[in-house]
Order: sequence, then structure tokens, then C-alpha cells
Amino acid sequence: MKFIHTSDWHLGRSLCNHPLLDDQAHVLRQIADYAQQHQADALVIAGDVYDRAVPPAGAVRLLNDFLNRMHELNIPVVIIPGNHDSADRLGFAAIPLNTSGVHIIADYEQMLQPVIVKTQAGLLYFHGIPYTDPIQARVFAQEPIDSYEQAHRYLIERIARNKPAQGVHVLISHCFLAGSQESESERPLAVGGADQVPAALFEGFSYVALGHLHGPQAFRQGRIRYSGSPLKYSFSEEKHKKGVLLVDIDQDGVAAATALPLYPLHDVRTIEGKLDELVRAAQTDAHCDDYLLARLTDDHAILDPMGKLRAVYPNLLQMEKPQLYQDDTAPLMSAARLRRDEFSLFSDFFEQVSGQPMTQAQRAAMQDVVDNVLKREA
Amino acid sequence: MKFIHTSDWHLGRSLCNHPLLDDQAHVLRQIADYAQQHQADALVIAGDVYDRAVPPAGAVRLLNDFLNRMHELNIPVVIIPGNHDSADRLGFAAIPLNTSGVHIIADYEQMLQPVIVKTQAGLLYFHGIPYTDPIQARVFAQEPIDSYEQAHRYLIERIARNKPAQGVHVLISHCFLAGSQESESERPLAVGGADQVPAALFEGFSYVALGHLHGPQAFRQGRIRYSGSPLKYSFSEEKHKKGVLLVDIDQDGVAAATALPLYPLHDVRTIEGKLDELVRAAQTDAHCDDYLLARLTDDHAILDPMGKLRAVYPNLLQMEKPQLYQDDTAPLMSAARLRRDEFSLFSDFFEQVSGQPMTQAQRAAMQDVVDNVLKREA
Repeated sequence: MKFIHTSDWHLGRSLCNHPLLDDQAHVLRQIADYAQQHQADALVIAGDVYDRAVPPAGAVRLLNDFLNRMHELNIPVVIIPGNHDSADRLGFAAIPLNTSGVHIIADYEQMLQPVIVKTQAGLLYFHGIPYTDPIQARVFAQEPIDSYEQAHRYLIERIARNKPAQGVHVLISHCFLAGSQESESERPLAVGGADQVPAALFEGFSYVALGHLHGPQAFRQGRIRYSGSPLKYSFSEEKHKKGVLLVDIDQDGVAAATALPLYPLHDVRTIEGKLDELVRAAQTDAHCDDYLLARLTDDHAILDPMGKLRAVYPNLLQMEKPQLYQDDTAPLMSAARLRRDEFSLFSDFFEQVSGQPMTQAQRAAMQDVVDNVLKREA
Repeated sequence: MKFIHTSDWHLGRSLCNHPLLDDQAHVLRQIADYAQQHQADALVIAGDVYDRAVPPAGAVRLLNDFLNRMHELNIPVVIIPGNHDSADRLGFAAIPLNTSGVHIIADYEQMLQPVIVKTQAGLLYFHGIPYTDPIQARVFAQEPIDSYEQAHRYLIERIARNKPAQGVHVLISHCFLAGSQESESERPLAVGGADQVPAALFEGFSYVALGHLHGPQAFRQGRIRYSGSPLKYSFSEEKHKKGVLLVDIDQDGVAAATALPLYPLHDVRTIEGKLDELVRAAQTDAHCDDYLLARLTDDHAILDPMGKLRAVYPNLLQMEKPQLYQDDTAPLMSAARLRRDEFSLFSDFFEQVSGQPMTQAQRAAMQDVVDNVLKREA
């Protein structure tokens, strides 16, 4: 039995105000191709399908197209809402959809009816927990539930009570596992670690498909995994290897969980150096249309560096000038520094605006102006 | 063969800022009961299921609950989007849903694949036109389409070309039929009658189930019908008999189209009279929680009439005082009238605030004040 585990699609998301729908469509096609190519018995999306409760219409179309493709391939899809999704909206028509192989587990009633996939090697059960905060669990349970851990314990016990003895059982949840690694692009569920759920709760399932964290990571001999998001949604994820997991499983447990890599339309990465160096480097950069953060190491002021870089890196999304802010011992922007350097500051400015250095006469005239002003100030 | 024809649910709509979700749930239950009780072969919703492109989550839940009930009853539902719906959003998962008996015809590709319902008496075909303005049709057709009539002609010809000779054929459309009667609660499709579609276009179908207009009405010997909305969505619909149509049809055409009445949680109606009379009438009004427009016939100013009426009519939504504005020959609010009446105006005001008339001494004092002010003005 084989299924694909993915999560945190965040359809409709932007990166630094740049919309990512085309990038998302590009990786969704690859995910569908993988499902087809590996003849997956099912595909699991562990929450945060959309980036917000009311996604843009284009994001709805994307998910729709993906589900149509899976439907054509006759591959069942199991989806739970994450903290970014609206369970009510995502769960629309979930019950009639069940008969078509699209399983959206958006409420507790559906949670207690596992999705059963008949494979050649036997029955594969998917138990999905719709994203739940302690208050929702308390209302459902009518018990004093105050933490994510208690909420999860309660819901998992309910699921376990219904779980038949035979078959292979997969649990799907959208939560923050204690000991796991966050990225900058996740919205914390609660402050100060109160959102953590211990791995011990997940005993009794052959595999646990988690969503919420955007970096792929594995726990308990690879039985509990985050697939991670299919795209880098922040520059903090620059080093992530994005992909989906192909989980090969049988009665004895997980035989293999293989990361299938996804190739983005535009990579998300940082370039660092002086402005001139970066502009020169673009000439030999085959991917200068990647989504870039430029870290400028120039130690003098530059006129419109964003404009100059964007002329060669069209998708430059963010810029930092660490030299200007980070040297605590001798701050470059200090009043003392500025007072010493009026002439050289203007000289830089002149060159950048006119494209050539000042002539001898211009230099003399400017020096006069600076001297005069400074004399009057003193 | 029998099916239910309804339209213009406008789930999520308000009446004078009063949300109607409970009222809508109340009539949707009746519609589902009718479908069950009459063992309908199908149920058709001819557009404007939601009131806006992004409906509130409660409206999504309502439609979801309704579809679940139909799914349980195994009654196919055929839906087209209207001018209030977002075709992209309403059409989510339409293709996998087809297999479950929920048919949302939200694009032209689906339009050309009729929904076929197998009944004991033969095949019943539903052809749905998703709501279309001339520009959408022009883009689809790549032909110079400038009007709603041309758009409809083009789409109907496309449908007719695909239509098998056998079976009974029902066309579903959301449009403004020439010669039909508007209400205040419909959003016009275009100005000056440019949105009109002639009935002649609809030849070749056994029945045409229309949506858009909120009053039920029939054309061409009852072969073309608006079911009307299930609720009164404006006071202009006070006299409407709201309901759904039970269409009984066979190879020879429409045998009967019976209006099945819907009973609202709150009626929408106008009460008229002097404030005192209306307050008194409330004592014997068994339905004083209806949604009311009060037309006050008092010819003098009243302090907080809305508050006084709402004490006995809790769902008073709107108030008119025709006497104060409509008597053109002797306008009550004219400067001349106001100048004559300072004392009596104040006298009214005093009685309403204090609940009793002025004493002799108070009257004399007030008269003095008025006289003094008038003397100074003159």
C-alpha cells in the first residue's frame, strides 16, 4: 500500500506581496504526476490547503482542478482543514463528495468515520482530525479541556475506540509536535509552547501524517512525519528541500517514506554582496528570476538600490543592508560619521545620479559649499 | 416524472440589515420535506443560491445541510449559478460531485453535458445555463455577442445541437424574460431593458425552469416558469404567494405545475395607521413578530415612534410617515407651518416626554417664551 502525504499548500498565499498562484499550480501538477506515476492508493493533505478562511477565487479553481485530476485518475484524496482553513467552507458538500473519492474531514462526526481505501494488499484506514483548538474540543467533549495536548488526547481516544483491529491505520492531524522545528511562515497556534502535542499520544497508528510545520521532519523511527509545505513560503526556508512523501506501508508498519522532490517555478533564496558585484553576477545567473532577498554589504549610501537590482533580478522581493545597521562598535549612520563625511556622501550621490565622477571644478565648488556650511554651523 | 423547481434562495441575505439565516433554514426544511413527500425525481435550483460571491459561513452550512438531506434521500439536485453567485466558488468540486447526485453546472463545458436522471417513466434531461452576461458569452463563443438575447441564443443553440432526440428535456436558466414582472429585491442585470431575453428562444424544451425574478410567473401555456424566491426579500413582495413548483411532466409535455406553498417563520408585511392605533392593534395581533414596515398616518411629530412600535412589534424593520412628506398642497414641514405652530409643537413634545399635558402654569410660561422669541425675530 502506498500513499502520498503532503500538507500546507496555502493556496492563495503571497510572498512579500507577490502572488504565488502560478508557482502553486506548477508544483500541484508535479504532485498529481507523482500520484499517477507511483499509482498511489490515496493522497493525504494534512491541513492548510488554503492560506485563509476566504481564499481568492483563483485558489478555489486550483484546488478544484487538482481534485478533478485525482478524480479522473481514480485516486482518493483525504483532506483535513488546518488552522488557516475555514472548516465550514472547506467542508462544503463533504458528505456527498465522499462517494466520489474526495474525503474532506471537516467535523467530528466525519472524524469518527474513517476513510477506508481498498487496496490490493488489504484495507487502508485514514483517520483525520480536523484542526482543533482547546475551546472547540471543550465544546465538543463537554469536558474541562484547556490545552492542545488534552484536546488531542481526547480526540485520539475517541478515534481509537472506533478503530477496527484489522487493517493499516493512518492518523492525520494538523498540530505542533513537541520537539519539532518551526519556520517563519507558520502562524503560531498559541504563545509560549502551549500549543505543543507530545508524540506519545500517537501510539497505536501505523503512520501519523502531520501538517502545520513547513519543514519536512520525522519522529519515532519515521512513523510520525511532517511532509512540509510544497513551496518555500519565507526566506527562512531557503535551505529546505521541499517535496511530498511517498509512504509505503503494510501490516508490519512503514516500509519506506520517500521524499519526492518538487521543483519550483522560482526558487526562494538570498544573494549577498556589494551592489556592483550582484549586478555583475546576474549576467551569469541562469535563475535571476528567482524570488530573491538581496543582502547588500556596501558600507555607503546608494540611491535606489532596489530599482538597480530589479533591472537584472526582476523578482527581487526584499532587501537588507546589514552593514548600515549591524556594526555596533562604529555605527555608520552616527551623527559623528555623517559630520565628517559630507563631501564624500555628496560625491557618491553625484556619481550615482549623473553616472560619472565630478570634474575638478565641480569638486572644488562643492568643497567650498561644504566648508561654508560647516563654518556657519560651528 | 416529477421534479421540484425553485430558485433565488439568496442564502446569507438580510432584510433591512436583519439577517435571515433562520428564516431561510425554516423554508429549506419545508422544501426538502416536499421533495421527500412527493418522491421527486430531482430538484432544480435556478440560480442565486447565495446572495453574494462570498457568502457568510452560515449560508454555506445551510446549503451543505440541504444537500446532505437530498443525498440521504437519494434525490439528485441540479444547480446553476445566478448573477449573485460566484460560478468559480459555487462550482468547487462540481465534477467529483456529479457522481454523488449533486450537479452544479458552473461552466460551459458542464453545460454541454446534460444531467440525465433515470426515472421509472424514462429519461429526464436537465440542461443548465450558468448565468452569463454578453461579455462572458462573447469570450466563450469568439463571436460578436453584444446582448443577453444574443448570448442566450448562442448558448441554447449549442445545447440544442448536443440534445438527443429521445427523453424529456428541461432547460434551466437565470435571466430576465421579456414581459415578466420585477420586484424591488432583484439586482437588475443591465439598464433600460437590455437584459431582456424573448420567450421564443426557449422552443424545443418541454419545460424551462427560470430564476432571477422573485415573483412566481408563467409564460407560454405554463411551459416557461419562474418559481420565484422561497421568501419575501422586500416589502414590494408583500402580496406574493411564495412557494416551489412541483412539475409533473412526460413525453407529451407539462401535465401540471403545482405551486407548493412555503410558510415563513416571519411574514413580511406592512401595517398602517396612527401610532396609538397600531400599538393597540398589537394586543390582538398573533403575529406581531412578523417583519414589518409601519406606515404612520399621524400628522404631527412624534418622539421616537420606532422605539414605541418596537416595544410591541419586535421585528419592525422600517417606518414611513407619508403624511409628513406627501401632502404637496399643504406641506406640513413648511416654514410657514412651523412658524405658526411653535407652541403646539412644544406641547406635543412635552406630552410625549413627560407622559402628561402641561399644567396651566407651564402653558402660560411656555407661551411667554414663544412670544418673546417671536418678538425678537420680527
